[in-house]
Amino acid sequence: MASIPFTDYSSSTATRLLPFSRTTFRRNSALFLSRLVGPLSMRSSSFRTLTVGSSSVSSLPLINAAIGCESGAKVIDGKLVAKKIREEIAAEVSRMKDEIGIVPGLAVILVGDRKDSATYVRNKKKACESVGINSFEVHLPENSAEQEVLKFISGFNDDPSVHGILVQLPLPSHMNEQNILNAVSIEKDVDGFHPLNIGRLAMRGREPLFVPCTPKGCIELLHRYGVQIKGKRAVVIGRSNIVGMPAALLLQREDATISIVHTRTKNPEEITKQADIIISAVGQPNMVRGDWIKPGAVVIDVGINPVEDAKSPRGYKLVGDVCYEEACKVASAVTPVPGGVGPMTIAMLLSNTLSSAKRAHNFQ
Amino acid sequence: MASIPFTDYSSSTATRLLPFSRTTFRRNSALFLSRLVGPLSMRSSSFRTLTVGSSSVSSLPLINAAIGCESGAKVIDGKLVAKKIREEIAAEVSRMKDEIGIVPGLAVILVGDRKDSATYVRNKKKACESVGINSFEVHLPENSAEQEVLKFISGFNDDPSVHGILVQLPLPSHMNEQNILNAVSIEKDVDGFHPLNIGRLAMRGREPLFVPCTPKGCIELLHRYGVQIKGKRAVVIGRSNIVGMPAALLLQREDATISIVHTRTKNPEEITKQADIIISAVGQPNMVRGDWIKPGAVVIDVGINPVEDAKSPRGYKLVGDVCYEEACKVASAVTPVPGGVGPMTIAMLLSNTLSSAKRAHNFQ
Repeated sequence: MASIPFTDYSSSTATRLLPFSRTTFRRNSALFLSRLVGPLSMRSSSFRTLTVGSSSVSSLPLINAAIGCESGAKVIDGKLVAKKIREEIAAEVSRMKDEIGIVPGLAVILVGDRKDSATYVRNKKKACESVGINSFEVHLPENSAEQEVLKFISGFNDDPSVHGILVQLPLPSHMNEQNILNAVSIEKDVDGFHPLNIGRLAMRGREPLFVPCTPKGCIELLHRYGVQIKGKRAVVIGRSNIVGMPAALLLQREDATISIVHTRTKNPEEITKQADIIISAVGQPNMVRGDWIKPGAVVIDVGINPVEDAKSPRGYKLVGDVCYEEACKVASAVTPVPGGVGPMTIAMLLSNTLSSAKRAHNFQ
Repeated sequence: MASIPFTDYSSSTATRLLPFSRTTFRRNSALFLSRLVGPLSMRSSSFRTLTVGSSSVSSLPLINAAIGCESGAKVIDGKLVAKKIREEIAAEVSRMKDEIGIVPGLAVILVGDRKDSATYVRNKKKACESVGINSFEVHLPENSAEQEVLKFISGFNDDPSVHGILVQLPLPSHMNEQNILNAVSIEKDVDGFHPLNIGRLAMRGREPLFVPCTPKGCIELLHRYGVQIKGKRAVVIGRSNIVGMPAALLLQREDATISIVHTRTKNPEEITKQADIIISAVGQPNMVRGDWIKPGAVVIDVGINPVEDAKSPRGYKLVGDVCYEEACKVASAVTPVPGGVGPMTIAMLLSNTLSSAKRAHNFQ
């Protein structure tokens, strides 16, 4: 089960999200976090810049019981929001092409024959096509030299038709991932994992060029559903480079008071219970129970974990880090799995690529 | 009173630490945080690398009532620790000179005639001399062109006898501070404020070249006094780029569960009361009262605030962010002001300069 490839590390540093192991974390089937991680160019008002169409989903009603939440909590419909964002991006891509003749381009480098990686790359390509973004793909054999990958990155760095470069992870073990990721031009690092981007994200008064897609998708959901962040207590569960840590930095930038819970935290539920907003990104199925949640809190569940399900033809089903049924009874709003944060990541990757092209061509 | 130059921004981004303004923050005379901020090269075990002498102060007893703490709490004697560290650095500088003929060098660039800045630069120079580090000083007139400053930075970047470069802040208002600070080579950014260093500090599996001096000094005090960090609840009060934010990242790197309290936090005392370790860096005299502190907590007070004092010939005295008398009754250990964190900052600047020289010459 653990080998089911539900994780798209994208251009992340391939930090495996470790399952929590303490007794207070009551579910322990060690699984993976499944994310399509890409990046997004961000300026101070970046989140708002996604609302590019004539209308916005910021007035989206919190829909009761839309996806099986029958007992009170509202469902934050990531699928709907992501669809809306993709429509907005498509309109912007079209406007850009019409006005200045430029089409944003995303280059993806895939090394080796992992089926999961091939699927993720295919999905990204399809998503690009659906909004009119050009996609470029390089597929190298497993035994390629690191130098070979660096050569392609260098080519894409210099290619003005490429506005985003994404190295699909994990890379073969003989390659130095950090070297390769560091070779991607900071202006095209659409995954937003470059330390310079993370540093700017952490610092007040600085602006990252790109923000990692999954945490950006989480915040975008909060924004689009009108959830107030400023002055609120927010707890992030998990401290990964690709989700937890940048999510906490984003929440703090929006004036939340943040706490970060991780594997070394004793009694995590005591902390989560104080939160107005919970973002969970640990890859531990149903870990966050109803009694971890403060009544009325908003819960964003980043985990996508396969658990055995004899009823399913595939033999498994997908669940989040949060026990959805219990959360529904306590929270005021919650993201379902699937259909919550999941669809947002790739939408943010497209948005990052669009923003990068706009910046490169000074297109407003 | 507010104009008393108690703040050494060093090469920080000169973010003024804003005083808290809500009613729960019971003292409101808006004042400044006074720090001599420099930087330090850090590897994974960096904190330990400071213990370079034959003996260490890690076995330092927590001294009761050493500086007016009569009612139980132990005093964390930053002055004593800083002295010890400077001795260790002096020994290492001497060994380096003997073994490979290299003397570490720190270059300080001062622009204009601010008396406070001149004093800070003089202190840094003296501190360098006391441990055998070469210091280089450039003093430019207030009306210098930005280009002039950049020219000197470029020269120091290329000069192999310079291992650390520090631009004394604040710069004259006609200069772009970010441009100037970004011009300092990352290998010589001994202040540790470069976003690349901050990004690496935030990311798991990455190592910053330098860690900002004041927060590093706080953690060093905890280490030298044998305070366990792993698994503990830690609350940082203040989220500045120069102290609060990097202090939180450092605590998290050591497996504390962190919360960050700031001006937008409602009821901050409810959060601080849960902490095993409190680091306060807001520049608000006596803000943290006894009832903000959990019995037995360790309190690190970064604030150095002047308050009126008719009895003093200067007309003022220095107090911390923490009400020392009350903290003494509740905490298990507390840093005094002055004589706590203050002396650590410049010791860490020297340590960063030494580490930089060691790295440049691959000297163990």
